[in-house]
Amino acid sequence: MSNVCDIYPDDRIILREVGLRDGLQLVKSFPSTAAKRKWIEREYDAGVRHFEVGSFLSAKNFPQFADVLEIVATIAALPGAHGIGLALNERGVDGALASHVAEIGTVVSATEEHSRANANRSRDQAIDNVRRLCELRDASTHKPIVSVAISMALGCSIVGPVDPREVIRLAEKCYAAGADVVAVADTVGYAGPKQVGELTAAVVRIAGKQPVCVHLHDTRGMGIANASAALDAGARILDGSLGGLGGCPFAPGATGNVVFEDLVFLCESKGFATGIDVEKLVDVRGILKETMPHEALYGGLARAGLPGKVARAVA
Amino acid sequence: MSNVCDIYPDDRIILREVGLRDGLQLVKSFPSTAAKRKWIEREYDAGVRHFEVGSFLSAKNFPQFADVLEIVATIAALPGAHGIGLALNERGVDGALASHVAEIGTVVSATEEHSRANANRSRDQAIDNVRRLCELRDASTHKPIVSVAISMALGCSIVGPVDPREVIRLAEKCYAAGADVVAVADTVGYAGPKQVGELTAAVVRIAGKQPVCVHLHDTRGMGIANASAALDAGARILDGSLGGLGGCPFAPGATGNVVFEDLVFLCESKGFATGIDVEKLVDVRGILKETMPHEALYGGLARAGLPGKVARAVA
Repeated sequence: MSNVCDIYPDDRIILREVGLRDGLQLVKSFPSTAAKRKWIEREYDAGVRHFEVGSFLSAKNFPQFADVLEIVATIAALPGAHGIGLALNERGVDGALASHVAEIGTVVSATEEHSRANANRSRDQAIDNVRRLCELRDASTHKPIVSVAISMALGCSIVGPVDPREVIRLAEKCYAAGADVVAVADTVGYAGPKQVGELTAAVVRIAGKQPVCVHLHDTRGMGIANASAALDAGARILDGSLGGLGGCPFAPGATGNVVFEDLVFLCESKGFATGIDVEKLVDVRGILKETMPHEALYGGLARAGLPGKVARAVA
Repeated sequence: MSNVCDIYPDDRIILREVGLRDGLQLVKSFPSTAAKRKWIEREYDAGVRHFEVGSFLSAKNFPQFADVLEIVATIAALPGAHGIGLALNERGVDGALASHVAEIGTVVSATEEHSRANANRSRDQAIDNVRRLCELRDASTHKPIVSVAISMALGCSIVGPVDPREVIRLAEKCYAAGADVVAVADTVGYAGPKQVGELTAAVVRIAGKQPVCVHLHDTRGMGIANASAALDAGARILDGSLGGLGGCPFAPGATGNVVFEDLVFLCESKGFATGIDVEKLVDVRGILKETMPHEALYGGLARAGLPGKVARAVA
């Protein structure tokens, strides 16, 4: 396997396309395997290298992820591309390990109430599962990266405000359990940039040399502002989805992840090279429009184009 | 007249509703005077106090501002409400002064090219006009506040990038000419938060005790992130429009101003009290939907509601 520092170097920004998993979590219709491949290949061509590939869940309940093994293989065939598969339970972990996906992601809820309501387990049990996942990983031949998202880290759909000290404590426990990456997730898009910046800075501090990801939703229009604050606070991995695809079962009517292409524009405007051609990226939205015509797509770049282009068009 | 410090105190944030002017600048259909009044009165009831009322332009070419005198009177009748009228030429200034609007806004282009193309005058001539406006103001009985927006301050639709030193030079000239407020305007939504923060900080520095406004458009999805950066850099006056209404003739297809209700949420989330009830504000969008059914409205708060409300709905 690759070292975590090769996949997540600490001297540059990594933007991860989570549309193929988080973006498809709740959709009614979804792209065919061939369309997903085209989506991945065209984003790869635009410079994207990190992709959430799907979730190792029952294909009966989640048919949108039934082709996860084929998507893992698609990513593995692209030089330098990195796939992340979500595994929420033991069976998922077995499937993910067997798939040889390069990174296995799992989730710990920030609040006891959400952990019990959503996953029917305590947070301690969730941390035990992370530990067990890391042991299985260590015993594997290909040793995938393990990442843990702390969901509801910036606000909980059940209890509301979340004590940041609890998130920091859980992040420490995740790293101690063997996780390579911890993601701070504003699952329901509750936070503003001040809160995101403060929590990110605190997690970056305890993470030391370990990578920290910030996973944001644009539910209340704060997504890009929150991403900017996360970057200022030292996060070097951010998640987004093409067109802001995706939603959350706990926030009905809410939009999904931060818009990937706007995230690229944000990073570049702040002087962080992403290696991604934003115009090529915007063009990939055509695949989503064709295969999921009823899904709302969001984003400023897609609407207005790059500044220079407009300037040329008008001048 | 009120002192500028009463209208724009330096110890709190002022959010200005510019939808009635900037938001209506390019629309094909527009609300009746009665509907505008309802819009103002309901926003006033939500806590909004600062309103751009319209533009003193030829009613033949801009019928949406034909009722500007009535709108000025509507605002003047509301205790503590403050109206701002735009005056772009001598005739407009005469009309604005005669209307007894509390604040007269005018514009100087950040680039020579845009100034000549858009207003058929040099920037020096535009500054001369500001000086003349301030002289007329000083000679008036009611002495309105004078504010100057430096348009294209963060990127120009004609020449592209703008030298921030030129903007700072122009801002100094505006204050020296007698302007009370200078607004840094990202007219075509070119900038990211780093650029907005740096320019805002520089203008705040030269402004001393004079108020600085930052006027942003959400063209590329950076509006709220840019507003956050402007606040961090010391701006205490921000413009927005309900639902993000408005566009720009120089950025076809682009969205308008920063979404006012999201701006309220941003400020409150950063600990800046706005005095505005965001839910009441969101409700006012109904007037826009009724009277301008073809205009796209934007905004995260309107989509998802306040975090607590969602929490209660789900829990």
